[in-house]
Amino acid sequence: MESTLFVKPGKVEITNIDKPSIQADDDAILHIVRACVCGSDLWAYRGLEDKEPNSENSGHEAIAIVDQVGKDITTVKPGDFVIAPFTHGCGHCAACRAGYEGSCQSHSDNFSSGYQAEYVRYQHAEWSLVKIPGQPEDYSDGMLNSLLSLADVMATGYHAARTANVKPGDTVVVVGDGAVGLCGVIASQMRGASRIIAMSRHEDRQKLATEFGATDIVAERGDEAVAKVMALTNGAGADAVLECVGSELSTDTAMKVARPGAIVGRVGLPHTPKTDLTNSFYGNLGIAGGPASVTTYDKSVLLKAVLDGEIHPGKVFTKRFSLDDIDDAYQAMAKREAIKSLVVVQK
Amino acid sequence: MESTLFVKPGKVEITNIDKPSIQADDDAILHIVRACVCGSDLWAYRGLEDKEPNSENSGHEAIAIVDQVGKDITTVKPGDFVIAPFTHGCGHCAACRAGYEGSCQSHSDNFSSGYQAEYVRYQHAEWSLVKIPGQPEDYSDGMLNSLLSLADVMATGYHAARTANVKPGDTVVVVGDGAVGLCGVIASQMRGASRIIAMSRHEDRQKLATEFGATDIVAERGDEAVAKVMALTNGAGADAVLECVGSELSTDTAMKVARPGAIVGRVGLPHTPKTDLTNSFYGNLGIAGGPASVTTYDKSVLLKAVLDGEIHPGKVFTKRFSLDDIDDAYQAMAKREAIKSLVVVQK
Repeated sequence: MESTLFVKPGKVEITNIDKPSIQADDDAILHIVRACVCGSDLWAYRGLEDKEPNSENSGHEAIAIVDQVGKDITTVKPGDFVIAPFTHGCGHCAACRAGYEGSCQSHSDNFSSGYQAEYVRYQHAEWSLVKIPGQPEDYSDGMLNSLLSLADVMATGYHAARTANVKPGDTVVVVGDGAVGLCGVIASQMRGASRIIAMSRHEDRQKLATEFGATDIVAERGDEAVAKVMALTNGAGADAVLECVGSELSTDTAMKVARPGAIVGRVGLPHTPKTDLTNSFYGNLGIAGGPASVTTYDKSVLLKAVLDGEIHPGKVFTKRFSLDDIDDAYQAMAKREAIKSLVVVQK
Repeated sequence: MESTLFVKPGKVEITNIDKPSIQADDDAILHIVRACVCGSDLWAYRGLEDKEPNSENSGHEAIAIVDQVGKDITTVKPGDFVIAPFTHGCGHCAACRAGYEGSCQSHSDNFSSGYQAEYVRYQHAEWSLVKIPGQPEDYSDGMLNSLLSLADVMATGYHAARTANVKPGDTVVVVGDGAVGLCGVIASQMRGASRIIAMSRHEDRQKLATEFGATDIVAERGDEAVAKVMALTNGAGADAVLECVGSELSTDTAMKVARPGAIVGRVGLPHTPKTDLTNSFYGNLGIAGGPASVTTYDKSVLLKAVLDGEIHPGKVFTKRFSLDDIDDAYQAMAKREAIKSLVVVQK
């Protein structure tokens, strides 16, 4: 089968490898329908994070058809259409019961990779896979993209809003205008925020943020952005802040625009040095977040919202590629020509 | 009047200074009835924190009689019996409205000192002072001590529980067996925790923790304490953690006993180096807290609970001193002979 190989920073390519097989009783083999490229895939592609040359791709978002299942799997069967979350919660440990399967306490192999391929072995499939009614051909192209977003970015944006404790009437700041930040805007609106300030420098993203419910756009960065938010909030700062980047600057900005008592919900993989928590103590600022609770949110609220046409997170996919053009898909995001690159595997 | 002078590490003494006078229209002059020594006063006394030699005492907890008020004060009048919180919120900025006056956005001089004295000038008194019905002679000795605890430690323990989001049914770990930690046990019980694990090495404190509602005592420290909590919680960790010390070890322990999704509510003044927030990200751990919302909690829940006899936080005062014996009061705490030292100013 075809699979994406991470050759080295700046280069991924298609190789032929063996189709994966069931290795554990709670495995499923998934035939990928649509996959995509994540902002987190770019850290290594840009050479900003170490990754073994000639290693498996880090793709971890897909919708798929179940191809085979291990003997312990009761929730899905071959032929089912599913969302394949990047998290693999057990559903019954304390973390999963509390709705934090991104930190499942049962599974050390809780995260995925290798989805930029024709097939993937999906570990711990029993609870974590999310069944979609019907088959891919029952859905419009836009709906398929929205379903794909439920494998990571929409759930991750929702996690930022949930861990930041966004409540009805809140003024929210969303730091980061990638797909996750834009989905954070959707999530903030779903949770009843009355004002959503999106930080974005790029016109296409500003436009989508506004379409998703942002009431204000701040194009400045760093301390100028902080000053702008403070001016917009009469010097108060935001009731909740979504940190959707993970860099040192974005984290610093997020902390500075939060009013006392606010929580910064962070979902960007942390690429920050050690942090002095003295200022946040005197400011009564909270820091929360981590890997998202994809299955929990999909099953409880997000899949229904997508199927009912209430939210359209698939709009973050602004360029489309076939699996054979995977390097172009990475390049489009690395050059910010695409907000997020869609990879169509099965036509 | 008599006031305590911080002479140098290991030595405080009584000196005679001028009685304070009204300097701003929202000042009040308070005639101290009872004051006390705080764990935070000990950092400088032990030489672990810089403090100017021959400077004002850092005492910041008292119950008092209002002596004079500035012309803007409408909420109290001379002769009123009050709790004097260590925080001086305005009551109307975004932070105060959200119940976080420990980080009031209106007042740069939001914290107090100098209460280990006969009189104190209390800035920004209008909203922050908390009126107590009647006069000191209307109350028992034990009740007066509980009222005194509402100036800081009981409210601070409550802040730890609130910022850790302690909910009915939760398993809570309280790190620190000083007066604040013990009050954190009370607060956890008030908020409906079903299991309260108190970390305490000292028999007198273990006994009081149990009296306040602790269901389990962990006497170990560091990673042994972590292992003990994990064993007590079937490997899950706690739903909420109260960090009531502020040291590097206590903060590390607090983070390690929290289950994914839990929040560590920290109220110990931070004496920690910079923190790597990568592990807390992958563990979906929250960190919140800061200076307590003393006025908010006193007015909304704590004063009533004390007056109704539902809670008895004054039991943390296990040794009594007159103002003249202030150095003995510090020593008793520094040597852990007292959980907290009461200083009776007006008899």
